[in-house]
Amino acid sequence: MQSQKDNSDTPDLLRLRPIGTLQSDFSFKFGTPRQGALAPASSGRLTLAPEWRGKGMFSGLEGFSHVWLLSWFNQNKNTKQAGKIHPPRLLGEAIGVFASRSPHRPNAIGLTLARLEKIETDQLLLSGVDLVNNTPILDIKPYLAEADRPAEFTTGWPSRLDASETRCIFSAEAEADLLQLTSNGRIADMPRFMDLIQQVLLLDPRPLAYRARVNERFAIVIAGQDVHARFANETFTVLGIKPFAGAAKGQTQSS
Amino acid sequence: MQSQKDNSDTPDLLRLRPIGTLQSDFSFKFGTPRQGALAPASSGRLTLAPEWRGKGMFSGLEGFSHVWLLSWFNQNKNTKQAGKIHPPRLLGEAIGVFASRSPHRPNAIGLTLARLEKIETDQLLLSGVDLVNNTPILDIKPYLAEADRPAEFTTGWPSRLDASETRCIFSAEAEADLLQLTSNGRIADMPRFMDLIQQVLLLDPRPLAYRARVNERFAIVIAGQDVHARFANETFTVLGIKPFAGAAKGQTQSS
Repeated sequence: MQSQKDNSDTPDLLRLRPIGTLQSDFSFKFGTPRQGALAPASSGRLTLAPEWRGKGMFSGLEGFSHVWLLSWFNQNKNTKQAGKIHPPRLLGEAIGVFASRSPHRPNAIGLTLARLEKIETDQLLLSGVDLVNNTPILDIKPYLAEADRPAEFTTGWPSRLDASETRCIFSAEAEADLLQLTSNGRIADMPRFMDLIQQVLLLDPRPLAYRARVNERFAIVIAGQDVHARFANETFTVLGIKPFAGAAKGQTQSS
Repeated sequence: MQSQKDNSDTPDLLRLRPIGTLQSDFSFKFGTPRQGALAPASSGRLTLAPEWRGKGMFSGLEGFSHVWLLSWFNQNKNTKQAGKIHPPRLLGEAIGVFASRSPHRPNAIGLTLARLEKIETDQLLLSGVDLVNNTPILDIKPYLAEADRPAEFTTGWPSRLDASETRCIFSAEAEADLLQLTSNGRIADMPRFMDLIQQVLLLDPRPLAYRARVNERFAIVIAGQDVHARFANETFTVLGIKPFAGAAKGQTQSS
């Protein structure tokens, strides 16, 4: 009790330097899934920072199906805010930040359980990723059932939500676009890309304020493609898919 | 791509200030369980830092059985080391830091799934805690099955370890000590304290280099008590339990 006068003391600042960077399918915050597990068709490539390469940091990860990514929500600037946030799924109700996984938290750290697809020397290939392209990664940890998987558990507010009955369909134009993008080599795996579009849309990326605007066309950039869609009658309809022209702008800050 | 010239760039340093402090049963790193879930009889009290009190940060945590604690391993000084570590369970074999939950990692952040026992205004009462007393807490997140609990998974090297056949027993002297400490009011819940001692010992807290020293007496401080034990014939025997006299020293740095 000599160096800490009181339990409520906050010791020195912790300074962290990212150990790597994640490349993902999501160029912008808008359309990035709120949890990677809900978009299993998403993919990512984690590359170690130069100072950590060639040290065998991934040795022993063989056989793990999942890893935790601790990430830096570096696009959030408004972290020093009130203690409550409004999760879109709660349609306006406010809850404490620590009862949510919102990026808008006192310390802008994210926690993602990603599927480990392949280990390369200083890279990890992942799926089920919920992070914006170029997100700095702070740590990687193996998924340990003994520690991370309680035999019994309950969840609070998410368990009270109604199951979504939303559907997602592709228009004839969108299907023609998909075929053309595939034949052009701009889409490598068409069924997987279609899965990813559906997974992203079924999470309803639209901000709460826009949801009343039925039938209004909106666009999301997914895996470098501009995906146009609209919502009506509990159905997202993909209207068209074009190569995204504005890849250079907004990479580091966008809504 | 304007502000980041290259994917391997590490952006600016992230500066974090703890949002609270955890009080736990473990005054020293020695004897602190390597995962909280393996010591369910352990308990902790998380107190928000003054700046985060009275803001409803915990509102909406009702109904969650578990929370993630992101903590700062602030007793680790040797973080800028080689990329591999030697988990005691692997008896000398080295693996990459990112295949382990070792505290000795590039960014000294810990991840603990603790059981949420009770929510008080600006405190959380927890069990299943693997953190040293006075550990700074960086973030609290709810356990979300949809994100954190894959339907199928595999674990690597831990799944290849033999199940332990170690036992733990209490000597007659230790049982007499327990009764006296209980009648003195120094132990509030004797069965739970006995469970905790067994859970800590069965994880074998002894450093690898000491394990060959069969029958050598050692001591661990658990919940403010000095617990003396020895190991022989696959059995930890608790020899005696006395109030720990040296609580003041080593609170902030000890092995």
